[in-house]
Amino acid sequence: MKCFDTTGDAAHAPGFFLMRGAVRQNYEVPARATALREGLARLGLTPASVAPATRAALLSVHDAAYLDFLESAAADWAALPEAGPEVVANIHPSPEMLAQGGTVAASIISRAGWFTADCACPIGAGTWAASIAAAGAALAAAAEAAAGRSAYALCRPPGHHAYAARAGGHCYINNAALAAQALRDAGAKRVAVLDIDSHHGNGTQGIFWDRADVLTISLHADPTRYYPWFVGHAAETGGAPGGNLNLPQPFGTGDDVWLAALDDGIRAVKAFGAEALVVPLGFDASEHEPLAALKVTADGFARAGAAIGALGLPTAITQEGGYNIDVIGDLLARFLTGFGNR
Amino acid sequence: MKCFDTTGDAAHAPGFFLMRGAVRQNYEVPARATALREGLARLGLTPASVAPATRAALLSVHDAAYLDFLESAAADWAALPEAGPEVVANIHPSPEMLAQGGTVAASIISRAGWFTADCACPIGAGTWAASIAAAGAALAAAAEAAAGRSAYALCRPPGHHAYAARAGGHCYINNAALAAQALRDAGAKRVAVLDIDSHHGNGTQGIFWDRADVLTISLHADPTRYYPWFVGHAAETGGAPGGNLNLPQPFGTGDDVWLAALDDGIRAVKAFGAEALVVPLGFDASEHEPLAALKVTADGFARAGAAIGALGLPTAITQEGGYNIDVIGDLLARFLTGFGNR
Repeated sequence: MKCFDTTGDAAHAPGFFLMRGAVRQNYEVPARATALREGLARLGLTPASVAPATRAALLSVHDAAYLDFLESAAADWAALPEAGPEVVANIHPSPEMLAQGGTVAASIISRAGWFTADCACPIGAGTWAASIAAAGAALAAAAEAAAGRSAYALCRPPGHHAYAARAGGHCYINNAALAAQALRDAGAKRVAVLDIDSHHGNGTQGIFWDRADVLTISLHADPTRYYPWFVGHAAETGGAPGGNLNLPQPFGTGDDVWLAALDDGIRAVKAFGAEALVVPLGFDASEHEPLAALKVTADGFARAGAAIGALGLPTAITQEGGYNIDVIGDLLARFLTGFGNR
Repeated sequence: MKCFDTTGDAAHAPGFFLMRGAVRQNYEVPARATALREGLARLGLTPASVAPATRAALLSVHDAAYLDFLESAAADWAALPEAGPEVVANIHPSPEMLAQGGTVAASIISRAGWFTADCACPIGAGTWAASIAAAGAALAAAAEAAAGRSAYALCRPPGHHAYAARAGGHCYINNAALAAQALRDAGAKRVAVLDIDSHHGNGTQGIFWDRADVLTISLHADPTRYYPWFVGHAAETGGAPGGNLNLPQPFGTGDDVWLAALDDGIRAVKAFGAEALVVPLGFDASEHEPLAALKVTADGFARAGAAIGALGLPTAITQEGGYNIDVIGDLLARFLTGFGNR
């Protein structure tokens, strides 16, 4: 299986992370990518470096004004008097504001609030370059899948919380959405996205909400107790009927129940008649994860890989979350081995 | 002129304040109320303590679920593992979430994100009691105005950024909106709100957006460069046509231009045929303010008081912002002297 790497991701080292009312060290750290590379090495895989995504490719799922913001945000922010080290917005447009004529202004403070969803996606000097590099890896994996071969993209930063015009939850560019759109553009009539990160893939859901040609599925921990807090419910079935399937799981769910829900997702992929698949792959469902919302074992990830691999679809796998650097390399190796590494 | 005080406001001492990507000391501090009391004392005025607002009164402009949140938020938050010292939400519902079935859950983390607009309204153990005490002062001033006499309410925390169901920008309960509604309920057919705080009175605008019986006017610094960033533009004329008038001023605006804009607001109050007036009074338009968006002098505030007093309307004045504790007492004395202290 070909693997593609994010180059320059180490320069994206977010610091700010607001959790339960206190600023903590962000846990989406460069050491994650190192651990994942070690997992690939165990399988004899060396991820290839690829070119960053072009603006034209990014525009296939993102808005131009949002891309302009992301590209210049760190520099614009640094020019503010008494600026903090990263772009983190204090205020986001509320529903009342949007209903009463609210608009974004030229100021970087206004744009930061408008184009981010939360305080968990700080933008530093290295964020843009790392984001488009990760997107390039996802597009390379999609190109492989378009040629009938599955591939893995070591995307860092991850992407599945990013909307068409809004960053959030460690995510800036939606790598999985880019891969799905690239597969459509390469000729696949129907593409499914099967997201097994423990957090709802809200950005991907948002991007394809009204699309009947891309089925988005997300298997995740109960969002009433977990990021993204407000969406990820089973009732969200898409603007195009049946275009979205959410499979929220109770806290503490372990292998068997999690894998049974995954089977529901796999059946939906088959029923949809998908010609190609994108798998946003997180390891934060692990029992060893810091937040430990779910309790999936290493064997559970191997079985998930096998179940998804058995679909026999050309598949682009994009790396999403997973924050315990002591285990994520092993979990990646287990998943890919289960998948078939073909 | 009767004055009403906020009791117990010192127990509301917010710490967290996120500005330009860094956490700073919040500047909506108890010393503000002390400075304002000194300003009143200079005029021989001693503000009277009054009972806190009742739930029935609060429900006249706020949603029940929001009040439930505010009342229990600090205790619910403190029960979280590794909770920070104040309620500060990481994520707020984005437009995409709301469009795709987003809902609030029972968790205090979910409710904190749902019911706050930004990271500038931390909720601590003393916030609820102080907020309903400030609301009680505003209602006492409204009762005076309903009897034909103008009055001043030393409200801390301030209120004009609070929506019916959302805190923001140091504000939790919208004291000015409560006063306006109380005046309506007491029989005034048309009530005007003339807000001269340097920040747009977005919460008050939001609460009365669709109401033809309450005219909201706000004179403030250009929101494209200043909180609340997304609203406060002249184009926002209300859901009930002509029900809202925004008078945004360029940064650096001084007395003459500011007072000319105030005259536009005063003319609108007259044209509306208001029978009673509420004045959300901030001193942050002062040239000595830390952020100094506007450059109004002490004499400017005296002239503003005189211009508003000349309307001859029964007026409830609610304290809003103003953060330079070295000058706000003097500015209050100047404003009330100009107003006529009658």
